[in-house]
Amino acid sequence: MNKLLLVALPGAQALTERLDHRLGTTPCPLESRRFPDGEIYLRVTGDVQGRDVAVVAQLRDPDPQLAGLLFLADALRDLGAASVGVVAPYLPYMRQDTRFRSGEAVTSSSFAKLVSNAFDWLVTVDPHLHRRASLGAIYAIPAAVVPSAAAIAAWLQGRVAHPHLIGPDEESAQWVSEVAGLAGCPHTVLRKRRLGDRDVELMLPDLQALRGHTPVLVDDIVSSAHTMATAVRQLLAQGHLAPVCVAVHAVFAGDAVALLQSAGAARIVSCNTLAHPSNAIDVSGAVAEAVRVELEELRARRRD
Amino acid sequence: MNKLLLVALPGAQALTERLDHRLGTTPCPLESRRFPDGEIYLRVTGDVQGRDVAVVAQLRDPDPQLAGLLFLADALRDLGAASVGVVAPYLPYMRQDTRFRSGEAVTSSSFAKLVSNAFDWLVTVDPHLHRRASLGAIYAIPAAVVPSAAAIAAWLQGRVAHPHLIGPDEESAQWVSEVAGLAGCPHTVLRKRRLGDRDVELMLPDLQALRGHTPVLVDDIVSSAHTMATAVRQLLAQGHLAPVCVAVHAVFAGDAVALLQSAGAARIVSCNTLAHPSNAIDVSGAVAEAVRVELEELRARRRD
Repeated sequence: MNKLLLVALPGAQALTERLDHRLGTTPCPLESRRFPDGEIYLRVTGDVQGRDVAVVAQLRDPDPQLAGLLFLADALRDLGAASVGVVAPYLPYMRQDTRFRSGEAVTSSSFAKLVSNAFDWLVTVDPHLHRRASLGAIYAIPAAVVPSAAAIAAWLQGRVAHPHLIGPDEESAQWVSEVAGLAGCPHTVLRKRRLGDRDVELMLPDLQALRGHTPVLVDDIVSSAHTMATAVRQLLAQGHLAPVCVAVHAVFAGDAVALLQSAGAARIVSCNTLAHPSNAIDVSGAVAEAVRVELEELRARRRD
Repeated sequence: MNKLLLVALPGAQALTERLDHRLGTTPCPLESRRFPDGEIYLRVTGDVQGRDVAVVAQLRDPDPQLAGLLFLADALRDLGAASVGVVAPYLPYMRQDTRFRSGEAVTSSSFAKLVSNAFDWLVTVDPHLHRRASLGAIYAIPAAVVPSAAAIAAWLQGRVAHPHLIGPDEESAQWVSEVAGLAGCPHTVLRKRRLGDRDVELMLPDLQALRGHTPVLVDDIVSSAHTMATAVRQLLAQGHLAPVCVAVHAVFAGDAVALLQSAGAARIVSCNTLAHPSNAIDVSGAVAEAVRVELEELRARRRD
């Protein structure tokens, strides 16, 4: 059987090792460096001829990564790969999903077109679906969504005493309620008013239900961390225990981690969708399973 | 008549102003900023509906620019532009034009595919055509090459006494001989041996012909500037006058300018294909003319 090969782009090596282990695949090394003028050099040193290949990509700060991602897909096809999928555990460009003001670029559609043109399938973890119901609305290729809720709920068990999950805004409700259901613990969703890229206001009710519980803030993408830090400060101001902060995707731009620490977070943990020192929750099992399914479906389509 | 609109990506504003002036076009403003997570925000504030549009792009350090370039093309089409061309006076990704070792990504082809998919035509200045005869070998869209030689020759006249042009390596022969012919001055081409990305060895004959002349080093792309700095040092060691350094494309990565200065260059000048303090040679006239021709040809094809 044509066995799958995984190729890790820079930053995705740790997750790719776990996926190779779980899928029983042989590592396919990639040489990558930058020329002095900033152009990227890529060389696939495994033999991909006739093989189904998946690129594993870490897309934090996506713009500098895009060229390498698209060039690698093109190179793999040129080198004779039978198919080229992409595992992007963190899917960027999900926020600008509509034209809020005239003339705006709807970057989520443009990004999806580029990825759909380059790859045969996509596997991602909890994409920031907001106004859109599914990835199928923008991605023209099969796109599997892996939920992180089970891994987060499993991590909470035995590590956090009497957790009470808190979603910092309405958008987080979908993740928070799912994790709370699986962990069998209560949850609350706050309401947010965004005043700017780095300025938010949270409506925090006086949470009597939190007495005796450890607040656990859960959000899908923690970028500047201003929302989560505001929630930490408001919870502490109300006399609650220091909250545990859980990010599905540790984007953590700039001084985000320091901001959470200085706000008074008891602990900051994240899933390993983006490599970061805070990675504590392993989603590779569910990702490997989704890759297996995508590959089976691709092979079924090929047989038809 | 459907009049052309030029949209400047960040870094290309100065050249776009000159092009607007030469073409008599009205500026079409673009709002651009980055979110804290590194994603780009773009908003075209001019009305492009039904108009022929050209994006003017500065592609020094191209990887972080690629997303904005492709997203803007997609947005312009989505906003109803009749056509979208690109003026990229410096065309990156021209060096890896073949597979030197097995498994290498041929990035010049991949980059050309992305640009060809996004735009209707391309205008560039002196692309680094080496093993390929023309851009048509990799670009699937009409691609016009604007030579910088006439602008460089015009700049030399009256500014440099008795110039003797020197190309630092065989690849520069095409530019140096053209400029020398137009400026009516002698020229010499050196031979180079590349030992690494930043390490070169030049074969410099004892140039008796240089006595009484100002050496003028001319190269198309000056990136790390190691080649040109080596030439400066070797010319000075042979007792020649301090050379003038001319770059068509002022990529000038890292400390390239300081390197040329400390090597002993009399002056460092460049064409305005990439915005840089050394810009002294204006190529906007020839670029505007090429844009006019591309647009006429596009409109002729549309009428057919």
